[in-house]
Amino acid sequence: MTSPLTAPEGVRRVACVGAGVIGGGWVAHFLARGYDVKAWDPAPDAEQKLRRLVDAAWPALTEMGLADGASRDRLTVVPTLEEAVADAEFVQESAPEDLDLKRDLLSRLDAAAPAGVVIASSTSGYPMTDMQTTAATPARLVVGHPFNPPYLIPLVEVVGGEQTDADATAWASRFYEVAGKSVITMDREVPGFIANRLQEALWREALHMIANGEATVKEIDDSITEGPGLRWAFMGPMLTFALAGGEGGMAHMLDHFGPSLKSPWTRLEAPELDKQLYDSVVAGCDVAADGRSIAELVAERDQGVIDVLRATGRLNKNGNGKADPR
Amino acid sequence: MTSPLTAPEGVRRVACVGAGVIGGGWVAHFLARGYDVKAWDPAPDAEQKLRRLVDAAWPALTEMGLADGASRDRLTVVPTLEEAVADAEFVQESAPEDLDLKRDLLSRLDAAAPAGVVIASSTSGYPMTDMQTTAATPARLVVGHPFNPPYLIPLVEVVGGEQTDADATAWASRFYEVAGKSVITMDREVPGFIANRLQEALWREALHMIANGEATVKEIDDSITEGPGLRWAFMGPMLTFALAGGEGGMAHMLDHFGPSLKSPWTRLEAPELDKQLYDSVVAGCDVAADGRSIAELVAERDQGVIDVLRATGRLNKNGNGKADPR
Repeated sequence: MTSPLTAPEGVRRVACVGAGVIGGGWVAHFLARGYDVKAWDPAPDAEQKLRRLVDAAWPALTEMGLADGASRDRLTVVPTLEEAVADAEFVQESAPEDLDLKRDLLSRLDAAAPAGVVIASSTSGYPMTDMQTTAATPARLVVGHPFNPPYLIPLVEVVGGEQTDADATAWASRFYEVAGKSVITMDREVPGFIANRLQEALWREALHMIANGEATVKEIDDSITEGPGLRWAFMGPMLTFALAGGEGGMAHMLDHFGPSLKSPWTRLEAPELDKQLYDSVVAGCDVAADGRSIAELVAERDQGVIDVLRATGRLNKNGNGKADPR
Repeated sequence: MTSPLTAPEGVRRVACVGAGVIGGGWVAHFLARGYDVKAWDPAPDAEQKLRRLVDAAWPALTEMGLADGASRDRLTVVPTLEEAVADAEFVQESAPEDLDLKRDLLSRLDAAAPAGVVIASSTSGYPMTDMQTTAATPARLVVGHPFNPPYLIPLVEVVGGEQTDADATAWASRFYEVAGKSVITMDREVPGFIANRLQEALWREALHMIANGEATVKEIDDSITEGPGLRWAFMGPMLTFALAGGEGGMAHMLDHFGPSLKSPWTRLEAPELDKQLYDSVVAGCDVAADGRSIAELVAERDQGVIDVLRATGRLNKNGNGKADPR
């Protein structure tokens, strides 16, 4: 029987509530990792769409390597929310992005799920504090924010609300790691969490450019896949920028490009680059570099770009390092 | 002799003025593509640093495939700007990001370079209109903005200023393509061009988060490399987001996430998602999709993520699709 004490490593039964692109992606991920999955979605054609999504994802998941016993047969689509979570050891909610709807759904899940079972929401940006207000036992409600598709993109951002028990947050982070995800556990709530705030800033700037006729959708996409995107697949924007400072690293980069923070290069106003921020960024880069010298990071970046170009067919196909201008 | 009529395909001699991280990266790229390169930089230890940069890049360039006859021996570091460009068939300026300095340098390059030779600036964001004001023949001055490192990242953004001859802009775009770059030619000046506006928005949001203690440098980097960055290496943010709309594509995504543009997910205010912008984004995605169905794009994205995870050592190393939580 399920008990509040089921260890993250011992979980076998997962419930996925909401089976759209994200919820269905979670279903595919948990199935590939060998879990028994019960899914519920109110849409009339939900099961058909869900199984089509899982079937479409399965070849990729098979190539990545299925867990022992992983099978699409372990998916059960049930007619009610209550049946989905009745014997669940973990619940992932992936309903549409509507605060009232999520608030209501999380309350119903809390009422129906076994005591102690952690319930996570895939919300793209609502703070759990705002979603857990009507639940009877808000302590077990956490945010577990994935990226599309959840069955391939490792990142899950985990953060609790004001009423969330720290143990529930820690349990969720550990469970996701056991389930093969790469977890960032936030100690405070920020709308949009981390990655969505970053990609939302980029997305909004892109929409401004399209609205003003400054760039086309294709130019925006090409500018990323032929440019910064090649680096971001394996080295984040902070360390990447540090390498623009040459042998001087981030400190030299900030000395050189700090003034451009005043330039109208985006509609987003920059913070004041005072000594405290300057020092935080430089010190943070040292932590992120984790002992790697600038020269070592440059070699790592160079090899990474070559590997990514080759892996995505843009090196061998065109030769001479010329990218496929798609 | 050099003449205004040297075709982009016929260029053999390139001058690189400014030999820091970007200028030096250009030198490495042009050498790898088989050009004769003359470089000049006023710094006392410039040649030593430049040759060290080229030596560090050479293994990567060799792995990517050198052009016939490519050799580090084709690099000549000269003591004056005039000697660097005296017989150049193309000039790439990569001086520090200082408007007055670039204005003065471009004027001197224009005075010293053979008639008709196109002179490109690596500026990260200054409009050429502002840089060409003091040059005798501003018509041949264009922006050719690369990404770090120029010898590996394919993208070059090309745009002219108000006084730039359209033929010079077209010549530069064609030359960069011949030289193995992936070119986006802009028909209007926008500060920061395209990719820098996008990554600057992300960078500024990251700085705000660090300044507010909302995330560490490492969390910001990890949130990208374990999340959106894996997709951006081969599929841009627009098409990627279109896939969040499921079988409904971008139209459904905008219907679903449009409201979040009002959410405080980033400090960057979003434009009004009116019908015109909505239609532009949806139509632009159709163009970018270039006939690929949503199902085909999903399969392409999935394979791309797997290829990138494997290429960057995060699939085989950890198995079961678990990413290396770096």
